[in-house]
Amino acid sequence: MPSPPRDGLLARLSGIVGDANVLTDPESMSGFLLDWTGRYRGEADAIVRPRTTAEVSAVVTECAAADAQICVQGGNTGLVGGSVPPPRRDGSRPRIVLSTVRMTDVDEVDAVGRCVGVQAGATVEAVDAAAARSGLAFGIDLASRQSATAGGVVSTNAGGTRMIRRGNARSQLLGIEAVLADGRVLRRWASLVKDNVGYDLPALLAGSEGTLAVITRVLFRLVVPPRAATVAVAAIAHVEDAIGLIGAATSRGLTVEAAELMTEAGIALVTGHGQRRPTATPGPFYVLLEVSGTGDIESTTAELLADADGLIDAVAQPAPARALWAAREGHTESIARSSSTPVVKLDISVPIRALPEAFAELAAVGTLTEFPCRPILFGHVGDGNIHVNLLDVPPEHATTVTDHVFGIVTANGGSISAEHGIGRAKVAWTHLGRDDVDLDIMRAIKATLDPRDLLNPGVLFDR
Amino acid sequence: MPSPPRDGLLARLSGIVGDANVLTDPESMSGFLLDWTGRYRGEADAIVRPRTTAEVSAVVTECAAADAQICVQGGNTGLVGGSVPPPRRDGSRPRIVLSTVRMTDVDEVDAVGRCVGVQAGATVEAVDAAAARSGLAFGIDLASRQSATAGGVVSTNAGGTRMIRRGNARSQLLGIEAVLADGRVLRRWASLVKDNVGYDLPALLAGSEGTLAVITRVLFRLVVPPRAATVAVAAIAHVEDAIGLIGAATSRGLTVEAAELMTEAGIALVTGHGQRRPTATPGPFYVLLEVSGTGDIESTTAELLADADGLIDAVAQPAPARALWAAREGHTESIARSSSTPVVKLDISVPIRALPEAFAELAAVGTLTEFPCRPILFGHVGDGNIHVNLLDVPPEHATTVTDHVFGIVTANGGSISAEHGIGRAKVAWTHLGRDDVDLDIMRAIKATLDPRDLLNPGVLFDR
Repeated sequence: MPSPPRDGLLARLSGIVGDANVLTDPESMSGFLLDWTGRYRGEADAIVRPRTTAEVSAVVTECAAADAQICVQGGNTGLVGGSVPPPRRDGSRPRIVLSTVRMTDVDEVDAVGRCVGVQAGATVEAVDAAAARSGLAFGIDLASRQSATAGGVVSTNAGGTRMIRRGNARSQLLGIEAVLADGRVLRRWASLVKDNVGYDLPALLAGSEGTLAVITRVLFRLVVPPRAATVAVAAIAHVEDAIGLIGAATSRGLTVEAAELMTEAGIALVTGHGQRRPTATPGPFYVLLEVSGTGDIESTTAELLADADGLIDAVAQPAPARALWAAREGHTESIARSSSTPVVKLDISVPIRALPEAFAELAAVGTLTEFPCRPILFGHVGDGNIHVNLLDVPPEHATTVTDHVFGIVTANGGSISAEHGIGRAKVAWTHLGRDDVDLDIMRAIKATLDPRDLLNPGVLFDR
Repeated sequence: MPSPPRDGLLARLSGIVGDANVLTDPESMSGFLLDWTGRYRGEADAIVRPRTTAEVSAVVTECAAADAQICVQGGNTGLVGGSVPPPRRDGSRPRIVLSTVRMTDVDEVDAVGRCVGVQAGATVEAVDAAAARSGLAFGIDLASRQSATAGGVVSTNAGGTRMIRRGNARSQLLGIEAVLADGRVLRRWASLVKDNVGYDLPALLAGSEGTLAVITRVLFRLVVPPRAATVAVAAIAHVEDAIGLIGAATSRGLTVEAAELMTEAGIALVTGHGQRRPTATPGPFYVLLEVSGTGDIESTTAELLADADGLIDAVAQPAPARALWAAREGHTESIARSSSTPVVKLDISVPIRALPEAFAELAAVGTLTEFPCRPILFGHVGDGNIHVNLLDVPPEHATTVTDHVFGIVTANGGSISAEHGIGRAKVAWTHLGRDDVDLDIMRAIKATLDPRDLLNPGVLFDR
């Protein structure tokens, strides 16, 4: 039950966004307070749904005046608990969830400048659809495309399957509009590829997980989709063979649009759930390669595969080749349906040269008697990024097994978060990826831009 | 003549880097105090040449204790006066130039991870040469490659001729080591394409022009050079035709490695200085396009040119096609030799859709009776970047004509600095590209990381 000062704040917020957009009853709020994985549930006084940057600015200003904290939520598809508020410990401080669900405007595409301005709540799918109407594409694609938002992918610096070709979300940014913790609006909005005037504040906000400002609008660059592409899936003997295949494709002048690594354990799982086996002969590993170029790409791809080291079997089809992609994209759902306990989902990266060894060590995690579990590994092999899914982990062992995996990652010079971010889930492990000076500078920047810890409390930093 | 407290500081600095690396006599210092353009000359108590990050840290710590200011200098090839200290106004504060000239180590290339670690003073040419020995290339190339340094290209976020393909200097960064204003060493050093753990501090330092930290080492990603490429120069009727040609090349699956726009005025100048005319028939505009791909690139390029709008004449050769590039690369020297007064060199960008109109307006600057001058325009057309060179400008009109050019740029939604940065030369105009909130946040970050204004005083911000 909100206390009287909270009632005053909520009344003022209703004055800004309208009564219908300040949700306070538990039933309406519940969907905003539970994250996608089901592991993180939080508490808040209200869900507030502004429509415009001006409304966000007014909401943040009121919250600052009331010393209320703000949890920013886009599509609520994050995997590290960053999209929902924490459970309430400090009962005294008011707290709202600021949802961008009504901020879905997509401006007209600038087909010459290849860019589009969108509000933070526009979905990845909506951005891509707008681009497609102008013969262009959005450089970011991920499985959660129907829900993940522009603000979310930028604030988490999302990667996804197109990253090897197009770069991360930060690379797609031409401009940004964001509300600072004091309610002021920071605006960089020019469709300029090159603009070397001072610090790159959009790049700083990208990946800051909503801790420095509330992103309200984004100006994205768009890309020219390949005229023709080929998708190949190769069963291979070693992880190294996947890395070799990517290098060989690039050396032949092919453009690698995507490169995904899978294992027989993962393929067995998805075929058990109705997907077709991609190659007639199985291999211990599989690489899915999507390539584009000029000339006869199918022949070039066939030559590439014919010369590949460690090749056991291969199949190739013109893109989009949804049946071949389905084996890869079916992993997440099959994994979720195959574990007797909540899946421990980790998302790590290692240097490319360390990938084969790290992959073997991670695959062996399940054989250790102290951590009985089934690892299913897959990921964006060209980026050194492995999604580590550990099935059947007894919940009481989840932290221990995470420690163990992160130990392997650290020993291999890797990162404990390749693309999912830190959120709340990995705050306890940030010292594995960042030394004291580094963390101190991050805290100093946070303190400068949000001195009263209004924005996304508990995300990225220890509370 | 250094005062006694200065002598104490210089003695301590000599203790760190050795007597031979603390230069104080005017003759030895003069080359470090005059910038490449000859327009900026500054003053300092000494030139200090450390060899290692540890020495830089010790030097900065001593300077901080003595309240001395530090101007960081790489290859001294900057065009905006950022590489030399300002003339001395406040006589009381000691000041040194910290030169990275001895920090030239280039580590062994990681050919699998496609990256290399280098010290800040390694030249672009040295980085590229190391990459080439492993069959790779550095993603940055610029005319000053023999002198421009790793630290310089990162701190200014340099662009260059390969940017349309490879991105800016910030995009090449995998890791960074830098000494903060209090002497602590900030280190992000992992050959990871994906590492989403907190704020992207390397991206913040890139383009900060030495105002936040002294970059001492850089871990660069390297790229696979194209197996084969073709260089075409087309004489075209309109600026739009250049933009259309780039789009058409991309649509055909070609990879655009470079795209440079020139005018007949520029070509007439370089042919007057001994370069060959690239096409038999002249045009008002010329576009140089370097493209790569799979299959028969020469045929694809020929088809591309045959279908091009506004084509007057064209010639194509296999890369590197140095004779075709010479017409473009000869611009800078020919311009320098052709002006009766110091050339006003501006470096602007506009949105691609505004490029034709902005280009026409900029070309017309010389026809205004109030600013009699000869404009030579050229640039990286795919990035919307135009190098505006104004010849024969009476020195007393330099600021007025700059105001006029920046007025055109601003009216077209452009940037007053596309790739050269702000340095000292453009500090007076930063408000044209950044609003008050934006500048305030930049100042707040500067104040957080360098509260006593030790690093690069007068660069990027008003003193």
